[in-house]
Amino acid sequence: MSVPAEAIATLVDELREFLGDRVSTAAAVCEQHGRDESYHETAPPDIVVFPESTEEVAQVVSLCARHRCPMIPFGTGTSLEGHVQALHGGVSIDVSGMNEILEVNAEDLDCRIQPGVRRKQLNEHLRDTGLFFPIDPGADASLGGMTATRASGTNAVRYGTMRENVLGLTVVMADGRVVRTGGRARKSAAGYDLTRLFVGSEGTLGVITEIRLRLYGIPEAMSAAVCSFDTLAGAVDTVIQTIQCGVPVARIELLDEVQMDAINRYSGLGYPATPTLFFEFHGSEQGVHEQVETVGALAAENTGGEFRWATRPEERSRLWQARHDAYYAALALRPGAQGWATDVCVPISNLAECILETRADIDASGLLAPIVGHVGDGNFHLAFILDPDDAGELARAEAVNERMVARALDMGGTCTGEHGIGYGKIGFLNREHGEGVSVMRSIKRALDPGNLMNPGKILP
Amino acid sequence: MSVPAEAIATLVDELREFLGDRVSTAAAVCEQHGRDESYHETAPPDIVVFPESTEEVAQVVSLCARHRCPMIPFGTGTSLEGHVQALHGGVSIDVSGMNEILEVNAEDLDCRIQPGVRRKQLNEHLRDTGLFFPIDPGADASLGGMTATRASGTNAVRYGTMRENVLGLTVVMADGRVVRTGGRARKSAAGYDLTRLFVGSEGTLGVITEIRLRLYGIPEAMSAAVCSFDTLAGAVDTVIQTIQCGVPVARIELLDEVQMDAINRYSGLGYPATPTLFFEFHGSEQGVHEQVETVGALAAENTGGEFRWATRPEERSRLWQARHDAYYAALALRPGAQGWATDVCVPISNLAECILETRADIDASGLLAPIVGHVGDGNFHLAFILDPDDAGELARAEAVNERMVARALDMGGTCTGEHGIGYGKIGFLNREHGEGVSVMRSIKRALDPGNLMNPGKILP
Repeated sequence: MSVPAEAIATLVDELREFLGDRVSTAAAVCEQHGRDESYHETAPPDIVVFPESTEEVAQVVSLCARHRCPMIPFGTGTSLEGHVQALHGGVSIDVSGMNEILEVNAEDLDCRIQPGVRRKQLNEHLRDTGLFFPIDPGADASLGGMTATRASGTNAVRYGTMRENVLGLTVVMADGRVVRTGGRARKSAAGYDLTRLFVGSEGTLGVITEIRLRLYGIPEAMSAAVCSFDTLAGAVDTVIQTIQCGVPVARIELLDEVQMDAINRYSGLGYPATPTLFFEFHGSEQGVHEQVETVGALAAENTGGEFRWATRPEERSRLWQARHDAYYAALALRPGAQGWATDVCVPISNLAECILETRADIDASGLLAPIVGHVGDGNFHLAFILDPDDAGELARAEAVNERMVARALDMGGTCTGEHGIGYGKIGFLNREHGEGVSVMRSIKRALDPGNLMNPGKILP
Repeated sequence: MSVPAEAIATLVDELREFLGDRVSTAAAVCEQHGRDESYHETAPPDIVVFPESTEEVAQVVSLCARHRCPMIPFGTGTSLEGHVQALHGGVSIDVSGMNEILEVNAEDLDCRIQPGVRRKQLNEHLRDTGLFFPIDPGADASLGGMTATRASGTNAVRYGTMRENVLGLTVVMADGRVVRTGGRARKSAAGYDLTRLFVGSEGTLGVITEIRLRLYGIPEAMSAAVCSFDTLAGAVDTVIQTIQCGVPVARIELLDEVQMDAINRYSGLGYPATPTLFFEFHGSEQGVHEQVETVGALAAENTGGEFRWATRPEERSRLWQARHDAYYAALALRPGAQGWATDVCVPISNLAECILETRADIDASGLLAPIVGHVGDGNFHLAFILDPDDAGELARAEAVNERMVARALDMGGTCTGEHGIGYGKIGFLNREHGEGVSVMRSIKRALDPGNLMNPGKILP
């Protein structure tokens, strides 16, 4: 299925009537909107539009619906499973220009923003209020994209994911209707939870044009530390015991020996190239002290060394920047290589086994693939660092990925903890959810009967 | 719409084939299954069945679907907005006999249970594991009912509601298909969030037959206190400031002067009959101490008196039992009276205004109606204590309720924080969600095209 050239030409004219030069068919612009940060092939849309309001998005959607033209919402293009690829052509709806912070209610710890607002932009805006938005997937993604993919990241172990932190949405439905979900109350028992349905729907049910988010007070004390371990098992067991003890750790990140070597080189750091945990503790001075004591004791029992502290904000930023650069650091291990990131999530009691078996499988396959993880959630990532011209490497990576997903599912886990399905993991959805996929399909059909909203994603 | 007597007779025979004597058409049994704890009129089903497994529920549903017979899932009948009334007759599916705790994974802090398991039963079962399930709506409700109504209660301010604490479900769909949602991983980005769609769907999308719940470690220290205030505004301002300061208080409950008088009489307590806050603090010894210091200082600044402590488990239980008996205590104020409970939830910055205006409205109406609330969430409840033979009183209560809901919605709140819509609040859903209701209706139609699952609830 693709849209006839004639219809595209008509649509361009109609879009220009109200968007003027905020409509582009330039090859470079379309190419840029047809790819994310993954290894998935570029699939450019026919048209890119840059609306600036909910009303403009609704007009775009109504027009596209009339021409039966696919629509793909676009934020910053930092997703990892081919979420924005225009598999059937159509219109990329780039909301990056809708980047206004519409209101901040400091007393209610909430805010309302447009979907193009980026994570760092929001936190800079909030700085003087004493509040922050904790969800941090690494990339400086748009909050619209983060909502659509149910993003999480390093802080999720304490603050939850986008699922827990979106209070309400404005969504343009597939027929151009504008719907407001949720509200400002902290809880509600009034009807179906549409907010949670749109969070993680990857643009397949509508276009998110406004988001109400929960905010948090900046903790009195924040402290970060790095701890090296002799063994991967020791590091993971420390994580498991920390969670089981109920320590409200804010971040607890694993980097395996391959990844530590990579970030040492890339970021000019001098950590031992052994399995390592990065921690961050939030709370009162006394509370942080208590958490550190508990976790320090657990680490010492599990082959962990001394904690190296980063208490000043600059030191903390440097440490987390190094963590966030893990993917680029891994890529730099092999100049000219292409990265392929994937993630799974398992119950925490199975985390050590799942990581160790996966590490052994990678090593046996002869591939280069550092492991990092938001391990407090049971979530970890692989980044295969591949030679793009070697089809054999790609095939082996696919096989390792398949086995890792199968392993995670067998252990009661999920095929993706936070990257989403896009079209890269579409083959695993049935295996994970079985008959549930048919329920998802019924909902998709009910809300987007023409299959125009980001077609080919999530549902096969 | 109601089912022809002939079809009912055939259905009874068919049901008896596999359920034997676990099928009842006795008037008393049907009456008991046609009412909840609310003022709403009894509407008995034609048949009550007592299945014992997912498979039996699926068989019941398939048969009902074939006869186009309405089905109403039934737990303990403690809901408050007419959720279980068989408005169009049909079959009440009583799952109270499905009350097995199927697994407890202490190391992963989760469990899997049947829907008839009750809140207290679960916590008794967990006692030796050092874990607990925090959601506590007061009534000893079934977890199936709590899931279906998105229940919350006193602990929600710290631990969230059923929305945050259900990890996965087994659901029998309207056509008898069995679907499993969610999983054991703490987070997942794999497809639409069906779990959250069923949580709060009030039996209108399917019958919940298994629930996976999140558990928590019992805190090292727990302490409860009661603090009396000179004014309602002082009590509410203390709550608002506590939340804004980020104190992780486990419970923070308001009882107004009318309610305090009622519980003093009912439970033989000697508290001042003034607006009062009940607190509970969870954490480490030191953490609880810090929380108490902060909240104590806030209370003192807001006309609060001394904290009266309940640290021993028996004292704490007695205190919370008194809180939970608030509704019965209110009823006892006026022998022969009928209670009518309603609730709303607003952003916390509007809580004082909303409660004070509502109190003034009740007083002006001449009605007896104590106010209690899970005020840390911005959620409060009214219980009108009415003469059942006085239509004028009922009409005045309806008017006060209407104005309270309108007030809450104008303040950015919701028409129900935790009781749900049932059919009692069906008239408010449009006002709250507008076009969103049409999206809910599309989903309902897609998943239950015959409108057989608890018809007449949530959606008009």
